[in-house]
Amino acid sequence: MSVTVLVNGTFQDSVSASDRGLAYSDGLFETIRLSNGLPEFLPEHIQRLKRACKRLSLDCDESLLVHEINLLLAHAATELQQNAVIKIIITRGVSARGYRPSRQSSPTRIIMLSPLPDYSFNQRSGVSVRVCDTRLSINPQLAGIKHLARLDNVMASNEWHDKSIVDGLMMDTVGHLVEGTMSNLFIFSDGCLKTPGLHRCGVDGVMRRLVMDRLAPSFSITVNECDLYMDDLIKADSVFITSSLIGIWQVSSIGCHHKKIDQRVIELQLALEALQGV
Amino acid sequence: MSVTVLVNGTFQDSVSASDRGLAYSDGLFETIRLSNGLPEFLPEHIQRLKRACKRLSLDCDESLLVHEINLLLAHAATELQQNAVIKIIITRGVSARGYRPSRQSSPTRIIMLSPLPDYSFNQRSGVSVRVCDTRLSINPQLAGIKHLARLDNVMASNEWHDKSIVDGLMMDTVGHLVEGTMSNLFIFSDGCLKTPGLHRCGVDGVMRRLVMDRLAPSFSITVNECDLYMDDLIKADSVFITSSLIGIWQVSSIGCHHKKIDQRVIELQLALEALQGV
Repeated sequence: MSVTVLVNGTFQDSVSASDRGLAYSDGLFETIRLSNGLPEFLPEHIQRLKRACKRLSLDCDESLLVHEINLLLAHAATELQQNAVIKIIITRGVSARGYRPSRQSSPTRIIMLSPLPDYSFNQRSGVSVRVCDTRLSINPQLAGIKHLARLDNVMASNEWHDKSIVDGLMMDTVGHLVEGTMSNLFIFSDGCLKTPGLHRCGVDGVMRRLVMDRLAPSFSITVNECDLYMDDLIKADSVFITSSLIGIWQVSSIGCHHKKIDQRVIELQLALEALQGV
Repeated sequence: MSVTVLVNGTFQDSVSASDRGLAYSDGLFETIRLSNGLPEFLPEHIQRLKRACKRLSLDCDESLLVHEINLLLAHAATELQQNAVIKIIITRGVSARGYRPSRQSSPTRIIMLSPLPDYSFNQRSGVSVRVCDTRLSINPQLAGIKHLARLDNVMASNEWHDKSIVDGLMMDTVGHLVEGTMSNLFIFSDGCLKTPGLHRCGVDGVMRRLVMDRLAPSFSITVNECDLYMDDLIKADSVFITSSLIGIWQVSSIGCHHKKIDQRVIELQLALEALQGV
C-alpha cells in the first residue's frame, strides 16, 4: 500500500493527542516542492529548518530527516513520487499538560506528501492578489521562522473564495506590509528591488532568500530589505510574490490596482527555471 | 481499562497528522477544573468556548461536549474521577494542506483528563512570580480567545525553572502588561481594582470574568479594565493572579519587589471558595 505520512520514522497518519504541536503550536514546519522526483533546494530547506529549530531550542537531526524523506518517497504512490509537496513538521513532542516544555520530551517528526496544487494557468501574464483585512501579529522573537502558530494566515486566507485571486497580502498590526498569506513579497520601485524586512513578523522563505542572495545579484540587482507600506505597493512599478511551491509569480493586479508586466521579473523567473533545471 | 482521552466521541489518544489544529494552530482550547467529581463553572466555560468558536467560525455543539465530558469521566481512572483537569480542544478538523479552511471539514473535538498540578503550598501567604522577557504578540482580531497559537506562552514559560516561581507575567510587544503565562492579572491600586484590558491580546479567562462580574461586585468593588504598565505593577498596593485551575492567588513577590498580603484579596478568595462549595 502506498503511504503519504511518516511519523518518527513509522508509516502512520496519526499523532498523539497530547503532542505539543497541537496543544500549543510548539513547533515548526517546512514546505518543499518535489519536481521530477527531486526535492527542490533541499539543502536550503534543511538549513532553514535547523536555524528555526535552534530559535525554538528544538533538536533537529538533519540526516535523519533526509533519510526519512527518501523513505517516504520510496513508498509513496507513483503519482506522488515525481511531483508533490513535501511537508515536514517538527514539534517539541508529547508532554504533560502545561506550557513549559519538559526536558524529557523528544521532538515529533512528521513528513507528509500531498499533490501539488494546480498552477497550470499562464503565470507569465501575471496573477491577481488582494490585500487582507486580517493583520499579522508582531513578535520579533518569533519573526522569520515558519512556526506552527499560523492562525493569522488561516483567518486571512478565509477572507476570500474567488479562485482567480491567488493570494492575499498582509500588513502587520501597525500597518507595515509583510508578505502574502503563503508567499513573500517583492516590489520594483524607483529602479530598486525591495522586500519587507521580517524583523517584526513574517516568514523568511527559502525562495525569498534565493531571490535576494542568488537570483537578483546575478543581474547585479541589489535587494533592499526595508519597511514598506500600502502606498509603496500602489506606487510600485511592478510586484511579484515568491514561495518554494510557486517559485516567482508576477502580480498583474492588487484589488483594483493594475501592475505592468516587468521584463526584469521575467528574467528572474527564467533564471530560477535554469537553476531548477526546467 | 481506564481512559483519559476522547476524540470525536471515540476513546483514542491520537488525532490525524493532517489535523488543522496541529498544522496551523487552527482551533481553541478550554481548561476546566474538576473538583470532587464536578467540573467547576462548566456553563461559563462552555459559553466562553461557544463565543470563541464563533470568532473563528467554528461549529460547537455544546450538548455533545457536555455529554462527552460525562462519558470520559464515567470511564476514567478512579483517581481522575474526583479531582483533575479537563481540557477541551476544538480544531477545524482534518483538511488538505493549505491555510484556507475547507468548507467540507468538520471540527475535531478532543477531551482529555490530566492530574491536577500540586498546589498544596500555603496559598494564603502569597506566591512569587517574575516578569518574562518574551512578549505577547498583538492581534486584536484574536485577542481574548484561548486559541491554539500559544508559542509566546511556551517561550515565556521556558525562561525559568525555579519551582518557587509559580508564573511569569507578560507584556505585549508595545509594553502593556497583559497577563501571566497561565493566569490573568489584577492589581489593587489607589483603592481601585484594575486588570489589563484584553483588546490587543491575552486570554479572557473564566476566573477573570468571575472576579469582575460576581466576586468583586459582591464587595461593591468595581474593576477597572485599563492599560497597565510595569510601573503600575511596582507601585500597586497588592497583586493577584487568577485562573480556572488556581482560582485566586495573591502575589507576595514579583522578582525583587515584595507585595503586602491584602485582606481584600483574602476576602475574594473566601468568596470564591464559598461559590465553589469548598
